Amino acid sequence: MTLPIVPPLDRAAERGLRALIDGKAKPSGSLGRIEDLAVQLALIAGSVTPQAVRARLLVFAGDHGLTQAGVSSYPSEVTQAMVATLLAGKASANAFAKAVGATVTVVDAGVAATLSEHPSLIAAKVRAGTRNAAVEPALTRAEVQTALARGAEIGGQATQDADILLLGEMGIGNSASAALILHRLGPAPLGDCVGVGAGHDAAGLARKRTVLEQAAARSAATAPLGVLAEFGGLEIAMMVGALIGAAASGRPVLIDGFICGSAALTAIRLQPAVRDYCVFSHRSAERGHGLMLAAMDARPLLDLDLRLGEGTGALLALPLTRAACALLTEVASLDDVLAGRL
Amino acid sequence: MTLPIVPPLDRAAERGLRALIDGKAKPSGSLGRIEDLAVQLALIAGSVTPQAVRARLLVFAGDHGLTQAGVSSYPSEVTQAMVATLLAGKASANAFAKAVGATVTVVDAGVAATLSEHPSLIAAKVRAGTRNAAVEPALTRAEVQTALARGAEIGGQATQDADILLLGEMGIGNSASAALILHRLGPAPLGDCVGVGAGHDAAGLARKRTVLEQAAARSAATAPLGVLAEFGGLEIAMMVGALIGAAASGRPVLIDGFICGSAALTAIRLQPAVRDYCVFSHRSAERGHGLMLAAMDARPLLDLDLRLGEGTGALLALPLTRAACALLTEVASLDDVLAGRL
Repeated sequence: MTLPIVPPLDRAAERGLRALIDGKAKPSGSLGRIEDLAVQLALIAGSVTPQAVRARLLVFAGDHGLTQAGVSSYPSEVTQAMVATLLAGKASANAFAKAVGATVTVVDAGVAATLSEHPSLIAAKVRAGTRNAAVEPALTRAEVQTALARGAEIGGQATQDADILLLGEMGIGNSASAALILHRLGPAPLGDCVGVGAGHDAAGLARKRTVLEQAAARSAATAPLGVLAEFGGLEIAMMVGALIGAAASGRPVLIDGFICGSAALTAIRLQPAVRDYCVFSHRSAERGHGLMLAAMDARPLLDLDLRLGEGTGALLALPLTRAACALLTEVASLDDVLAGRL
Repeated sequence: MTLPIVPPLDRAAERGLRALIDGKAKPSGSLGRIEDLAVQLALIAGSVTPQAVRARLLVFAGDHGLTQAGVSSYPSEVTQAMVATLLAGKASANAFAKAVGATVTVVDAGVAATLSEHPSLIAAKVRAGTRNAAVEPALTRAEVQTALARGAEIGGQATQDADILLLGEMGIGNSASAALILHRLGPAPLGDCVGVGAGHDAAGLARKRTVLEQAAARSAATAPLGVLAEFGGLEIAMMVGALIGAAASGRPVLIDGFICGSAALTAIRLQPAVRDYCVFSHRSAERGHGLMLAAMDARPLLDLDLRLGEGTGALLALPLTRAACALLTEVASLDDVLAGRL
């Protein structure tokens, strides 16, 4: 398997960018985190006039054998139903994408059903759902590598007509997979990684914990590819590839919440330079997301008690990236203001 | 003076709205604060299909006699220069407005200079800057009432072609005025209300504190109109009126940071029902803003270390209101998804 290599950002330009922003017609530092974001986007673009106008959300979908063990309160079939909803333009991600100005493409990474062709669907299915990680490896090494390679190609392709990429996902059971990935790649105690996902009562959460303890006891894997194979997530593995592919193409990537974050964590463990291209959009209400963000030294832009997925949090952060670009491209310098050159 | 009366929201519809949102094709509660925002916007609109498409930012500008006492590190003339920058479309607020899709109108509430006519300028000057509140009342009662009345008219008018109003301000020295307002209307100890504003070193901050103690010692006013007269801010008083005018017209208003917040606090003390129409956009880096928000029982949407003003924070929160509307208007119900009605 050959994945593109992500070059670390050249930080040499940072001082000049800070000076440029400090020279704008506003008190120094008064735009706080928007200034930091502007610096990051300019470094990624290698330009003092970065853009985030053309934005594409890729929603990676896949099913999880772990659902057979009862980790989710929803049946696996909901994945397919929500993919249909996304393709019909009627899911939360479509609504938010319309509100902020972004296109939505669904990627079938491993839905456990045959999906009809659709102009907004990329058919990239590796297999119809993962195996049940509670009793056996979710994926073979070959399946992981196929998912990564397809993801990298999709991520790279998407950057050809997009200034910025957004990652999201749909997959019943995937917060269980993400919890195991955080546990091993954080690393963090498993108990701190398991949350209610799409919703659980106390009994449901206890069952999820028990199943994940069983899965964790089955394998001692701690290397990124091994962890992906053991605990899966075809949509997660493909997001890892997409993030690497987009970053290698020199594009920023907005990371959604807990599940998307597990893909970012994996990609960063594979290639630490990926971190430079990640914009962390929000702090999810899912237990474990704080630990996950800390493991990536990430401070997200938003904190709105979201726990939906689909890229909804990434979409809400998108306008902030556009504002950061506009700070660089649209705001006069203080010198020009004082000299009356407007 | 006659200000319009703001009717409190009828909360009877809230339960139905919550049920409508819970019936959408997503886990219950999974959109967190966006769901709360959707409920608020629907209650304000009196409709399950609220809109926030047409957005207008009003930037109220005014000068402060307090600057003569050295409360700011910037000279008063910067107000005029930044108004010119805003009118030229080159300020941070213009950049953000372009990025998120909003129009910007500047209101001359009390700039200490004669401004030329401009299609984006509303001439509403009450007087050329306030008096020096350290030694005398900043405004007469009549001037306060004129500012409130003009603000109410401007706010009401602006709602005729806008679904949502954003308030912002420009006025060197106005964080000093806002600190005194918070001190009296919070109320809160003066020392906790005074921050660095647009920027101060330790000596500058100490001087600002001393001046504000002097101003506070001069008057015991605690009633909203008396506080506005003593400690001013023509742009603040006019924002109070604009907020009341917009709310009375049944429109939501995005509140920016510390100075705009002092206007919201004053409006709420005048008419508590105003609170229902306020969307608090962000937690400013300015000391005292946390106390101010607490005094209004407000939890803002964003926390990005902003301390610029001009309505920049309100503009960054605008897309969240559009997403909240889209949740209500664009997302399918779970029933429709399960029945295949897409």
